[in-house]
Amino acid sequence: MKRPTHGGNLAWAAAVAGCSPSLILDFSASINPLGPPKRAIAAIAEALGTLSAYPDPNYHALRDSLSQLHPSIPPEWILPGNGSAELLTWAGRELSVLEKTYVVTPAFSDYRRALQAFNGNIIGCPLDLSVENLNCPFITPPRLEADQGSGLLLNNPHNPTGQLFDREAIVPYLEQFALVVVDEAFMDFLPPGREQSLIPLIQDYPNLVILRSLTKFYSLPGLRLGYAVAHPERLQRWQQWRDPWSVNTLAAVAARAVVDDTAFQQQTWDWLAPTRSQLFQGLAALPGLQPLPGSANFLLVQTEYPSSQLQRQLLTHDQVLIRDCLSFPELGDRYFRVAVRTMAENQRLLAGLAVILSSSNGV
Amino acid sequence: MKRPTHGGNLAWAAAVAGCSPSLILDFSASINPLGPPKRAIAAIAEALGTLSAYPDPNYHALRDSLSQLHPSIPPEWILPGNGSAELLTWAGRELSVLEKTYVVTPAFSDYRRALQAFNGNIIGCPLDLSVENLNCPFITPPRLEADQGSGLLLNNPHNPTGQLFDREAIVPYLEQFALVVVDEAFMDFLPPGREQSLIPLIQDYPNLVILRSLTKFYSLPGLRLGYAVAHPERLQRWQQWRDPWSVNTLAAVAARAVVDDTAFQQQTWDWLAPTRSQLFQGLAALPGLQPLPGSANFLLVQTEYPSSQLQRQLLTHDQVLIRDCLSFPELGDRYFRVAVRTMAENQRLLAGLAVILSSSNGV
Repeated sequence: MKRPTHGGNLAWAAAVAGCSPSLILDFSASINPLGPPKRAIAAIAEALGTLSAYPDPNYHALRDSLSQLHPSIPPEWILPGNGSAELLTWAGRELSVLEKTYVVTPAFSDYRRALQAFNGNIIGCPLDLSVENLNCPFITPPRLEADQGSGLLLNNPHNPTGQLFDREAIVPYLEQFALVVVDEAFMDFLPPGREQSLIPLIQDYPNLVILRSLTKFYSLPGLRLGYAVAHPERLQRWQQWRDPWSVNTLAAVAARAVVDDTAFQQQTWDWLAPTRSQLFQGLAALPGLQPLPGSANFLLVQTEYPSSQLQRQLLTHDQVLIRDCLSFPELGDRYFRVAVRTMAENQRLLAGLAVILSSSNGV
Repeated sequence: MKRPTHGGNLAWAAAVAGCSPSLILDFSASINPLGPPKRAIAAIAEALGTLSAYPDPNYHALRDSLSQLHPSIPPEWILPGNGSAELLTWAGRELSVLEKTYVVTPAFSDYRRALQAFNGNIIGCPLDLSVENLNCPFITPPRLEADQGSGLLLNNPHNPTGQLFDREAIVPYLEQFALVVVDEAFMDFLPPGREQSLIPLIQDYPNLVILRSLTKFYSLPGLRLGYAVAHPERLQRWQQWRDPWSVNTLAAVAARAVVDDTAFQQQTWDWLAPTRSQLFQGLAALPGLQPLPGSANFLLVQTEYPSSQLQRQLLTHDQVLIRDCLSFPELGDRYFRVAVRTMAENQRLLAGLAVILSSSNGV
């Protein structure tokens, strides 16, 4: 079986580990370990009797619910999709008609897929991984070259580094690029006082597209649900491109059930900060590992021991899956990424890493 | 609310009828009234605990299951999708690079969407609705004009007429067109001895694409699941275009649960033929109506009374929804389409129609 280019591939991990996929403890996909919320599962169970009907192709009720998450944004500025990855396809199509698209690297590998699908011209803009200037998305800001014929695709917080860019650091790009696509798939892991979403600015910038996911924070990646926030004309165009019933009924009812689940949201924010801090310290204490400070629900870790070997040994010894970084050419075998899970699960990861790294004496 | 261009829009129907969508008796979407099979619902309920994991992006297990439906076809010739409508998008993209694409009309309106999305050049080929020559897809066969720069998109059985074309009537087109896309969304409603699928020929024709749906026969349109059967190179290309996790986990487990549900399949075939025949006779007995003979689980009906008015009156009087044909320019207000449902439900439709048509004295 081919090595996967995304996290969360339990079929591959189970084949390597020689066990059932359900036994794998997955740190490779960055999914909230506290979910799914009970409300979501209850809503899905209740809706099983409605599967003989098509979804509403206009997703009126779902759009109304999603606009509750962003009270200043009218429903027609929101388009739900079959995961944010589906919406990335159409963002990639729009970026690809531009002369070139700047992509902050290392980049989520699906960005390349979405741009190459439409023969886009990709220009990589490397992040400074030594992290002196946390608030600048670029080592060499492309603003010098940017013009109205260029696009920009970045994520905030950045994946896989976990860096959070201030809203104000991105705003200037909105004046300089023909189209700016900001993937905020992990922004909801930041509590209200700390998040840096550009959504409040959307009505001022018709050249801005924001992609959001619901399935990471609410632990429903198997169900597929994301949404785009952008100018209604752009979203109507995307709807003419894609099929009419992109979001399945169960994803729609689950989303509607969780958008106002403030207890689950608070519980997640309360869990994340101290748990990430403890995981960070645990990783930093291991020989040959250096985690990067991150604002999302995952940590990127520099490793002296090759990450692909670490990954294989953790799988076969501990049925624990970490995300190697071979699909990020800038990172390769010198980095891996781990999700923040519960304290007990993080301890299992740390214990497994400790055994491998202490017996390896460095490399 | 805008008049829908597809059947099954219960949100629109409920707004017209002034009732809850769940109270609408829907003849506008052609969905098997016997389903969903208990196995599907049980498999979905059992899988609710797995939604925190991503779907397998290669869909190995699902492809293996689907290939059980077509034992001569290896799994790599099968690509599952988020409904066959998602796969139609990519078929539309491939057709659109050709000089022109012939589309048998009246045509499912989503064909136009998928071709226009990629600026395809559409040439309509009208069916003979007076139906003297049931086995020829075209009044004027485009073979005279066809060349290796042209594509062909048709469905079999044809929607909305319900005409079934013999396999042999389509085979010559495979030699004449650069790409032939056959939408067999309703083919599984034909029992094994009567179906005319081109799937057994797929390995001989790299220029053939067959689209199938699982959600009509198994009554799961809310869940979204279809598949394409085509050359593996073509399907790999489509996978590079679309997002990696197009099919949600619950659709995948439901599909795997039903492919060998031979009891449900037989029950459906046993129900359909006599029930369709009875509905046909009931419609033909009403003043001003003339149903067309059809092979699928729906009937197209010619009406002297305008179908949009019939539709509105049935909704407000009886909470019954039929499919007007305004989105088919060739049919307009002179036709409507109805699904074959259970005998009791069909009686409710016929009774509602009888009241309206007898009080109207024609028109």
